[in-house]
Amino acid sequence: MVKRYLSLISLEEALHLMKTSFPAPGRTETIPLLQSLGRVVAAPVHAGYSVPEVNIAAMDGIAVRSRDTAGAREQAPVTLEDAVRVNTGNVIPPGFDAVVMIEETWEQGGRFQVRRPVAPWQYVRPAGEDIRENQLVLPRGHVIRAFDIGALATYGITQVEVRSVRVGIIPTGSELVPLGVRPGPGQVVESNTIMAEVFLTAMGASCTRYSIVPDDPGLIRDTLAQAVESNDLVVISAGSSAGTRDFTATVIGSLGELIFHGIAVKPGKPAMLGRIQGRPVLGLPGYPLAAQTTLRELAGPLLESWGLPPAPRHTVQVKLSQSLTSDLGFDEFVPVSIGRIGEDYWGIPHSRGSAVQMATIKANGYVHITALVEGYEACQELDACLTTDPGSIERTLLLAGSLDPALEELADLARSRGLFLHTSNAGNMGALLALKRGSCHAAPLSLPPLSILPVCPSLVQHLPSAGLVFVHIATIGQGIASREGLTLGDLAGMRYVNTNQDSATSLIFDIVLSSRGVEPVRIDRGLHQIATPQAAAAAIRADLADATLCTSRVAGAAGLHFMPFAWEDYELAIRREMLEDPRLGALVTLINSPDFKQRLAQSGGYDTSQTGRVRNLTLPGSGIDIHREPAT
Amino acid sequence: MVKRYLSLISLEEALHLMKTSFPAPGRTETIPLLQSLGRVVAAPVHAGYSVPEVNIAAMDGIAVRSRDTAGAREQAPVTLEDAVRVNTGNVIPPGFDAVVMIEETWEQGGRFQVRRPVAPWQYVRPAGEDIRENQLVLPRGHVIRAFDIGALATYGITQVEVRSVRVGIIPTGSELVPLGVRPGPGQVVESNTIMAEVFLTAMGASCTRYSIVPDDPGLIRDTLAQAVESNDLVVISAGSSAGTRDFTATVIGSLGELIFHGIAVKPGKPAMLGRIQGRPVLGLPGYPLAAQTTLRELAGPLLESWGLPPAPRHTVQVKLSQSLTSDLGFDEFVPVSIGRIGEDYWGIPHSRGSAVQMATIKANGYVHITALVEGYEACQELDACLTTDPGSIERTLLLAGSLDPALEELADLARSRGLFLHTSNAGNMGALLALKRGSCHAAPLSLPPLSILPVCPSLVQHLPSAGLVFVHIATIGQGIASREGLTLGDLAGMRYVNTNQDSATSLIFDIVLSSRGVEPVRIDRGLHQIATPQAAAAAIRADLADATLCTSRVAGAAGLHFMPFAWEDYELAIRREMLEDPRLGALVTLINSPDFKQRLAQSGGYDTSQTGRVRNLTLPGSGIDIHREPAT
Repeated sequence: MVKRYLSLISLEEALHLMKTSFPAPGRTETIPLLQSLGRVVAAPVHAGYSVPEVNIAAMDGIAVRSRDTAGAREQAPVTLEDAVRVNTGNVIPPGFDAVVMIEETWEQGGRFQVRRPVAPWQYVRPAGEDIRENQLVLPRGHVIRAFDIGALATYGITQVEVRSVRVGIIPTGSELVPLGVRPGPGQVVESNTIMAEVFLTAMGASCTRYSIVPDDPGLIRDTLAQAVESNDLVVISAGSSAGTRDFTATVIGSLGELIFHGIAVKPGKPAMLGRIQGRPVLGLPGYPLAAQTTLRELAGPLLESWGLPPAPRHTVQVKLSQSLTSDLGFDEFVPVSIGRIGEDYWGIPHSRGSAVQMATIKANGYVHITALVEGYEACQELDACLTTDPGSIERTLLLAGSLDPALEELADLARSRGLFLHTSNAGNMGALLALKRGSCHAAPLSLPPLSILPVCPSLVQHLPSAGLVFVHIATIGQGIASREGLTLGDLAGMRYVNTNQDSATSLIFDIVLSSRGVEPVRIDRGLHQIATPQAAAAAIRADLADATLCTSRVAGAAGLHFMPFAWEDYELAIRREMLEDPRLGALVTLINSPDFKQRLAQSGGYDTSQTGRVRNLTLPGSGIDIHREPAT
Repeated sequence: MVKRYLSLISLEEALHLMKTSFPAPGRTETIPLLQSLGRVVAAPVHAGYSVPEVNIAAMDGIAVRSRDTAGAREQAPVTLEDAVRVNTGNVIPPGFDAVVMIEETWEQGGRFQVRRPVAPWQYVRPAGEDIRENQLVLPRGHVIRAFDIGALATYGITQVEVRSVRVGIIPTGSELVPLGVRPGPGQVVESNTIMAEVFLTAMGASCTRYSIVPDDPGLIRDTLAQAVESNDLVVISAGSSAGTRDFTATVIGSLGELIFHGIAVKPGKPAMLGRIQGRPVLGLPGYPLAAQTTLRELAGPLLESWGLPPAPRHTVQVKLSQSLTSDLGFDEFVPVSIGRIGEDYWGIPHSRGSAVQMATIKANGYVHITALVEGYEACQELDACLTTDPGSIERTLLLAGSLDPALEELADLARSRGLFLHTSNAGNMGALLALKRGSCHAAPLSLPPLSILPVCPSLVQHLPSAGLVFVHIATIGQGIASREGLTLGDLAGMRYVNTNQDSATSLIFDIVLSSRGVEPVRIDRGLHQIATPQAAAAAIRADLADATLCTSRVAGAAGLHFMPFAWEDYELAIRREMLEDPRLGALVTLINSPDFKQRLAQSGGYDTSQTGRVRNLTLPGSGIDIHREPAT
């Protein structure tokens, strides 16, 4: 392989270089108060006048001079010559220093009487009670909150000087088309700089996004030189091709100096940092997840070191649902789905492909495997950063097992009831492992009709010792999907994808094939990240494979032919004690709802006559017994 | 007192009524992708095309048909008739299903050779690897994050249908002037609806703020009727006068129905809720802190129940630095300053005056005393909600004691070093109590020259048993502040404010006064919330009092005369073990810095010749001994 980077530097060193090479530019801007939410005060804000500016009444009553009331008693009321009627909020006239509640006064010949002496200051909001003229309201560095803006308005402050950072963002790459243009084959929509703009603007930066620059060193050089003139930081996004990146590094070197090129971070290795006219130029890798890491782990901390407020970061300690290996010396970031099961938070890792943006969309957090760690075993604990609000984590259910589009319908219904379903494609075996270790709330399983269960030893040996409850989702037809309508006998020599090789149907299918002497070329999903039947179907459509076993719905969605093979029970397995969790109670109710059944019926390919049926599975001694009474 | 509310309902009941009386309006709007951060998806978003749309190369090399490479070995290379050179990102031509790295190919007579068989799919990013045409990208209810927007751009999605809520906000009150106009006596800047707009817009609502409506039932009625027509929620802010509020309730009743008026919440009691044409009308109280509570505790949850994302809420368990009483049956919210001392978080309550907005500006959180609790003792634990990012709490130092503007200079310097100083005016006695129970990081004390210390028994009996370190902040002159230049002999019968009655200087002052037979009228700060010498000086300027004891700087800032009385040592007392906390080490270094001394010198009234001097105070047996060696 061609060596692209002279040497990789660590994330820690990269951060240190960024922060020490570039002192805060110290730019400020003065903005209207109403636009100042989340901005950082750059110059102390002082009150222009006192609030209240004069003494005002805090009660409806009469304004008095306290010394005039001295000696007043029930038996010896004092008549006040010049008390003044005031309402709450009215100005107390000069010379008066207290208010008597109207209920505690008596009128006598057009004048007010009091029967108790009054202390100075009674029921008076003194001038400057809230703030005094010239008093400091907001110190430098204060991050402005919504309710601060209310106070500032009260104090008559109409604009604020806040910290400002100008960022120029340059997309480069001849394969790029702008958002709004449909990409042709081999083209992609330029999205990294859109992401950078949204991310950095949310931190309080003022971003200028340049037009797409094709892979031409002269044009890149011109744009970069121009961007450096008018910005405090320039972010330049390479296209996804290697050539482009090399242009960027060379151009940075020709205009200034390249500080580093290549960091020991996954995803994010091709990130680079340069300095032109004393200003930082950060090179984003082309792969979207690598660009995300670079923005979050390098650009964010740089702006923070310049005094912009940090992006809020919630962390929670999670147990990993499966082991995660990582190269020693590399800081690795892996998207995860986090949910609380009992007292523990669990994290299910997503795909680590740096081009698969759906992984971060589906995830609600990520874990950071530091350079000093080679990875984590399943069930080990580590900190996860949340990418959603913590409240939604509490309403997240983790489902691991064999996935079918029926779960998407279920997830959509669950959303409308405030529950977030995160699914993980683990196959039947993974489902049972997850049930056993308690790393999922529930496990969808594709089972042959239950009478066949005992012939499936791999399934039985992994059943958790605790009792299980099976909730029937649907009965689903499995069959052969292909471009040309292949049947069992046609599969010899064909490229056949095993997406779900541990399901009983798949095992039976193998037995049937081999009994007929048919030998396809097997493509194992583990090797090729063909995570789901949908992906396998898409690959067949794209002529990377010829056949797979899936449902008619999956085949139909990919425009493939479908030859029925067998019916499967699609069941949701739940540890019995987990049913006490009200979230799972709600999920079971949902499966049993007319809404859900109707949706499955509409999408076709499902037999819903048993949907919602609940059965207990117990393991008394050696045998398996499925009771047909409802679960408790 | 006039009864304003027929009956108060609980916060819980008010929330229940809000949520059950008003189902989600179900409004949506379609907005450009780049403006969608933080918005909630209203209709599922599907991919318009697959990404990648065709199979593309994941490596520089040659595209091959995998079956053509069958049988290739080192000794028997296979020559490929029509392999195609591809670079990373290039389209794989139809019929080809794998890529061989360029390093593993050999050229032979213009054609490529391979020496190993290739599996289908090798180094190919299959069509649909990231997402497939028509696949669900974002489900309903998803809150859009910055990195989601990158993915959506990649998938060619240019706009999103999101949940939308229209809120009309009406300010009422004849005493109000709009932001930008300087209020005259008895007028205030209309700020509650500005606060409401900023707060609700940040939640994702589309707000329309109406012009100020004077206290005229007809005009209020017209504006309200118009606002209800075009909004899903109307927020009407009463002016601060009682009369205005009453108009609002009557007008709501005449246009529809009043659901409640008055809630058992402090601050926030005058809040009201009505229904006009099926739409909610929420009445905000006029006092700003009461308006804040109503927005946060009622309007926020209503929008949340309508499907807008909740405002992020961080909580932390704090110990209270002082007891907080609360009326049973009332939900009370109290702003607090939170800091971590050792392993514990402590919360220092701020003023509860519902007009004092500076309290929420200064606070970094608040506590909620629920209706079922009568209050909390000092040192009791309860949950506090943060109003700043959690990271800043870790960098917050809590100082309780006698306050002087010197601390503001120190706080400003500390800010530039990433430390947040929160000060609490507790007097000398409060300072010693806080030191003893460990509820502050350090305690500023106003001390007479140290030789007089033994004559001050109240001070000695409260010293914590652990050793203290005294860091000298400055020597400060105390004297009599007044409008007319009063001297000791003039104070008989004058209104004299005791702001710091537990300081030794104040005690000596009292002794001197009484030895001369001078008897002023004492105004105790405890009764009147005169929290600081600055407030006392402002009150003298406003003719609510005649004299106080303060520094020349405080007197000067208020435009008062100053008659010197004595010099005091202004010292920062720190428990010796606390010096191991690097944050306190940094603070002591800062006090000793030329920067700080220069700032004090510039502001005048300070003798800085001893500033930064560190002394150990130990209590060997009964006596007090102050060693002049430096602290360890």
